[in-house]
Amino acid sequence: MSISSAGIVKKRLFEFACNKNDMMILESGKKFGPITIAYETYGKLNQNKDNTILIQHTLTMDSHAAGIYENGGGSGWWDGLIGPDKAFDTEKYFIVCSNIFGGCSGSTGPSSIDPEKGHPYGTDFPFFSFSDVVKIQRVLIRSMGISKIFSVVGGSMGGMLALQWATDFPDEIGSVIPIASAWKQSPMQIALSEISRQSIINDLKWKGGDYYKSGKPDNGLALARMIGHITYMSDASMEKKFARNLKNGKFNFSFDADFEVENYLHYRGKAFVDRFDANSYLYISKALNYFDVSGDSLTNGLSGKDISFLVISFESDWLYPARQSEEMVRYMISKNIDVSYCKIESTYGHDAFLLEINEESKLIKNFLERVRNE
Amino acid sequence: MSISSAGIVKKRLFEFACNKNDMMILESGKKFGPITIAYETYGKLNQNKDNTILIQHTLTMDSHAAGIYENGGGSGWWDGLIGPDKAFDTEKYFIVCSNIFGGCSGSTGPSSIDPEKGHPYGTDFPFFSFSDVVKIQRVLIRSMGISKIFSVVGGSMGGMLALQWATDFPDEIGSVIPIASAWKQSPMQIALSEISRQSIINDLKWKGGDYYKSGKPDNGLALARMIGHITYMSDASMEKKFARNLKNGKFNFSFDADFEVENYLHYRGKAFVDRFDANSYLYISKALNYFDVSGDSLTNGLSGKDISFLVISFESDWLYPARQSEEMVRYMISKNIDVSYCKIESTYGHDAFLLEINEESKLIKNFLERVRNE
Repeated sequence: MSISSAGIVKKRLFEFACNKNDMMILESGKKFGPITIAYETYGKLNQNKDNTILIQHTLTMDSHAAGIYENGGGSGWWDGLIGPDKAFDTEKYFIVCSNIFGGCSGSTGPSSIDPEKGHPYGTDFPFFSFSDVVKIQRVLIRSMGISKIFSVVGGSMGGMLALQWATDFPDEIGSVIPIASAWKQSPMQIALSEISRQSIINDLKWKGGDYYKSGKPDNGLALARMIGHITYMSDASMEKKFARNLKNGKFNFSFDADFEVENYLHYRGKAFVDRFDANSYLYISKALNYFDVSGDSLTNGLSGKDISFLVISFESDWLYPARQSEEMVRYMISKNIDVSYCKIESTYGHDAFLLEINEESKLIKNFLERVRNE
Repeated sequence: MSISSAGIVKKRLFEFACNKNDMMILESGKKFGPITIAYETYGKLNQNKDNTILIQHTLTMDSHAAGIYENGGGSGWWDGLIGPDKAFDTEKYFIVCSNIFGGCSGSTGPSSIDPEKGHPYGTDFPFFSFSDVVKIQRVLIRSMGISKIFSVVGGSMGGMLALQWATDFPDEIGSVIPIASAWKQSPMQIALSEISRQSIINDLKWKGGDYYKSGKPDNGLALARMIGHITYMSDASMEKKFARNLKNGKFNFSFDADFEVENYLHYRGKAFVDRFDANSYLYISKALNYFDVSGDSLTNGLSGKDISFLVISFESDWLYPARQSEEMVRYMISKNIDVSYCKIESTYGHDAFLLEINEESKLIKNFLERVRNE
């Protein structure tokens, strides 16, 4: 734990919609409850309750964005950006990160027990949209007495959730930082999601989502993760990391992994199935594909509001190419919205938003200071 | 059939290595025979037998490169480039295209009957390399009395087979045209191959390759094809073709295909399983990943030889990015090899080599004329 870490942190649970009268009505029209949302906080909420930064995670991450747990384990996934004097300065800001509705790291999702039936929801879990996710997350934020969020921030899917906040509740946020993200899912992104979903659905162990007793579709979920990892890297970063290095120094002349890159993908795939639920993957990935706040959807509500945007993309990111961020930024500028944009040079591909900590820190720190002093 | 088509064409079979004494010895050390190679020819072999152009196909194509069969069916996959007065002019050249060893369109492959056992080889089929493929193809060429090939040509995997010819038999070819190709497989390409293979291997119907009686791993093979199709297109070509168009005009809120792009991938996947064998896919894809003639492997044998290269890449091709062709071309120039290079502007992605017929025709026609007159 570095000296500027967020320190020992704790996962908390927030429960609501526990009785029939206060269930959430989802975009699909379905009513749903009870709901638990797992979350973590770093830093302190100030007296004015106006120093909250809401961090949104990616498809496969969770509420553990910074610090470490008392019983050990890894530090949070954005630990380099969150802590005293870091980009998201825990001396100044109250930072909240919650696990997405539909997830599998403490929040209610398909692997949660349906209280009416006494077994996991599976595919009885309702389909949801990012509007639903944000509406549910807002209940948590409101429960803390926070009526306005200083900044909503996220990389990849997290950036899209931040943009969903700006679209749905523009009066309740002060700034937005979407990183390596987009204002709508492109057909390429939808296509890549669909092959990942089919990897799971093709696994006979998926059994229509009802696998919690019979054994998980590990091969399918691992394959989905392998597909994901390819899209997180770049041609250049793969060349640098793996080249054509062989696992055993020679060709196997078999269907086993010959190359280190294959071995790496298998390793990452296997590690993933221990920590993620296949149905959560499917549901969140569908919601992701439904995401589209492009054009006036996003900007109509922002007109005349005091909201600032910092948009960041990365040169070698082919999963969320800069052209998508740039399309959004151009449109925002045409609508007189306060937006700063930077494309960071990097060879890391989409993973850059987790790795280019120094460059991101500079941009984010300056941006937050400016917004705070305005 | 256009007026300049190669006309009515016929698939022929060539058999050899039929007895124990003349079996092929593969790179893995295994002996193998008998071997059948399916092939087609267009145009006429001249008296000097020096007007042969050998066309190499991609992973999933076959010997039917041009014209149509007497009983109908589609025209060949490169029909736009092959015919009277076309880039590969059948009035001038004798054009040969053969189905790859290990394939499933007439050539001996894993789905062929093992004469010793009376059932398909399955995974008893030997692993092979592109050196083996070229060595086997050379037997066919020699059987026609051809000792020197005027030009070896191919797109994608076909380009790599052309480069393998240049590496293994530099004295027997006059020119090489690798299009949308590379002189070695990159880790990104290996990774994409591996997820396609795992799609098949994960399918419980694959059964270790022994599925010919029990039913084919159609879902797995279709998924491999879906992955492939994503890599053949580009972000821009997907935007143009599909945007976010919905299949049914609204979200399904189910795991069915919502978007046209998903529907298209499923359609292409399903169409593929009717014409391709899963084991052939696995074997050829492994050989593809083994391919590496980079650096002196390629150039050492070319020193002082009268061989000309035309290398073509496409701007938006991210499966075989231009940087790989350019790396090869730079190295060739440093070794005083006669090489022309062109990167064609296109938004079609890797598929451009099948679609940018006009641009390719100009380059190829001029190049072949120059080589012929030298």
